[in-house]
Amino acid sequence: MTKFIVGVMGPGGGARDEDLSNARELGKLIAEEGWVMLSGGRNAGVMDAVSRGAKDAGGLVVGVLPTSDRSGCSDAVDIAIVTDMGNARNNINVLSSDVVVACGMGPGTASEVALALKSRKPVVLLNTGADSEKFFGSLCPDKIFTASTPKQVIEIIKQLANR
Amino acid sequence: MTKFIVGVMGPGGGARDEDLSNARELGKLIAEEGWVMLSGGRNAGVMDAVSRGAKDAGGLVVGVLPTSDRSGCSDAVDIAIVTDMGNARNNINVLSSDVVVACGMGPGTASEVALALKSRKPVVLLNTGADSEKFFGSLCPDKIFTASTPKQVIEIIKQLANR
Amino acid sequence: MTKFIVGVMGPGGGARDEDLSNARELGKLIAEEGWVMLSGGRNAGVMDAVSRGAKDAGGLVVGVLPTSDRSGCSDAVDIAIVTDMGNARNNINVLSSDVVVACGMGPGTASEVALALKSRKPVVLLNTGADSEKFFGSLCPDKIFTASTPKQVIEIIKQLANR
Amino acid sequence: MTKFIVGVMGPGGGARDEDLSNARELGKLIAEEGWVMLSGGRNAGVMDAVSRGAKDAGGLVVGVLPTSDRSGCSDAVDIAIVTDMGNARNNINVLSSDVVVACGMGPGTASEVALALKSRKPVVLLNTGADSEKFFGSLCPDKIFTASTPKQVIEIIKQLANR
Repeated sequence: MTKFIVGVMGPGGGARDEDLSNARELGKLIAEEGWVMLSGGRNAGVMDAVSRGAKDAGGLVVGVLPTSDRSGCSDAVDIAIVTDMGNARNNINVLSSDVVVACGMGPGTASEVALALKSRKPVVLLNTGADSEKFFGSLCPDKIFTASTPKQVIEIIKQLANR
Repeated sequence: MTKFIVGVMGPGGGARDEDLSNARELGKLIAEEGWVMLSGGRNAGVMDAVSRGAKDAGGLVVGVLPTSDRSGCSDAVDIAIVTDMGNARNNINVLSSDVVVACGMGPGTASEVALALKSRKPVVLLNTGADSEKFFGSLCPDKIFTASTPKQVIEIIKQLANR
Repeated sequence: MTKFIVGVMGPGGGARDEDLSNARELGKLIAEEGWVMLSGGRNAGVMDAVSRGAKDAGGLVVGVLPTSDRSGCSDAVDIAIVTDMGNARNNINVLSSDVVVACGMGPGTASEVALALKSRKPVVLLNTGADSEKFFGSLCPDKIFTASTPKQVIEIIKQLANR
Repeated sequence: MTKFIVGVMGPGGGARDEDLSNARELGKLIAEEGWVMLSGGRNAGVMDAVSRGAKDAGGLVVGVLPTSDRSGCSDAVDIAIVTDMGNARNNINVLSSDVVVACGMGPGTASEVALALKSRKPVVLLNTGADSEKFFGSLCPDKIFTASTPKQVIEIIKQLANR
């Protein structure tokens, strides 16, 4: 029986302080629920912060790396999946996740939200701004959920998992 | 010396009539410039229309297919690249193109715009609506261009190629 | 700190009885060492047998699936990585593994051995026959190791890990 | 109607002189038949030689690159497909080809032969040595053909195309 996986996507470079603190808190809460936390795995920005949050709370952390080896992997990753596929690995991130959370926004994160919607995965936008909420909400109104705190993200995921 | 490639992305299912007529005209204009036209290759929506437009005008048409064989390929494709990668092939579409044009909007097209911006490719939005122009314009203001007709797209590409 | 991963590759359909019993034993021994067991994840042949062996011994089991969702995944997989990349996922299997073991032989397994050698990963051939030992041994003599029992595989991996 | 594509695979670094002269001759003969020549696209070894041979004879040359841009592409490539997928692009090479030819042997070429057989593509081994002929011939006897000259390769492809 495969484990329930929450994928957390967000900027590597250029993450805002609030995205990093949200990511750290979100990682902790995911681990406390007993869910696996999956991210893009790099030792940068939201990927690193959410991995550390989950790891410090005793969670299992999966990192799906764009690179050809484990260099550049966050120290908090338990299971490193090495793809050597650059940004095409973003599709693996979302397909492997039961729910996708966007923590902050940038071009890479936008691609992950769009790829998730293309595959009909539910997506929670955490503090990604009005422009992205409006755009993605218009693309797939039934799959986009918005939250302003990590705790709200967890509540939304629980409701989705109970459907 | 590799040929100059214009990638045209757009909805398969759910394309609007105006997207299809724009795609057909755009394909024709690309072929008349002597550029290679690349799309997602399927016999559906914008992919099919832009391929037919380019082919009928004597152009060279490349289709990068998501499937494991050529079934489902547009009849107007000359060179079928078979990826068996589903939506992860969207990254190949944009990396292989000198310029990316979005003709209409949907989750798959949104992923291609975002992946193009992530790799710093210039993107022309043709009639994709105010929400997408605002969102993507805020992500990468220097790489997003907007057009309302296929002729304007060609003018923008010529300016970009001359830089 | 990422965990040590042993990738076990082998036929899905067409696996021999001895490959299946070797796979089951090998999965058990990998789990007993505390290593993560990674395979192609499908509920067929060597992939399923090695996953069951590792799972029953309390190990952590990763499956890197070729499909677009978890249907067809072995029940013994803990972490399902969904790639939707068909056989191109074979490269992810080998890049994610510290050591690759081929348990039986077939076209897919041969591609994994070759891709592993291309990326300079050590490969242990378990009972794959004289033709494959001779061919792959001639390609990369310093990276090919041969074993006739699962216990020998574990001994070889320990020696490699201590280098 | 998509064009008929012959994929020619072979070592980049480490190609033998006879592989390079065979590749150049083979590219010429493929172009003279009016077929598209597809290779791994790099400006090295067999990939470069076969591309030059086809280009000089007026053929259309497709290169499926492992890299994230066109740097390192053979000058003789007309259509560069940029995958940023490393060796996973080997699967695209074989899936996009109607027939696969191995011109020389190495780990990368071996992976392409194996991936081709996995997808039931016919493969012609040109001067790849007795060990590889024996191994791949035992894996899929009905899909492996052997040749000792480029002209023989063309004859085999014509027979396959007429089936």
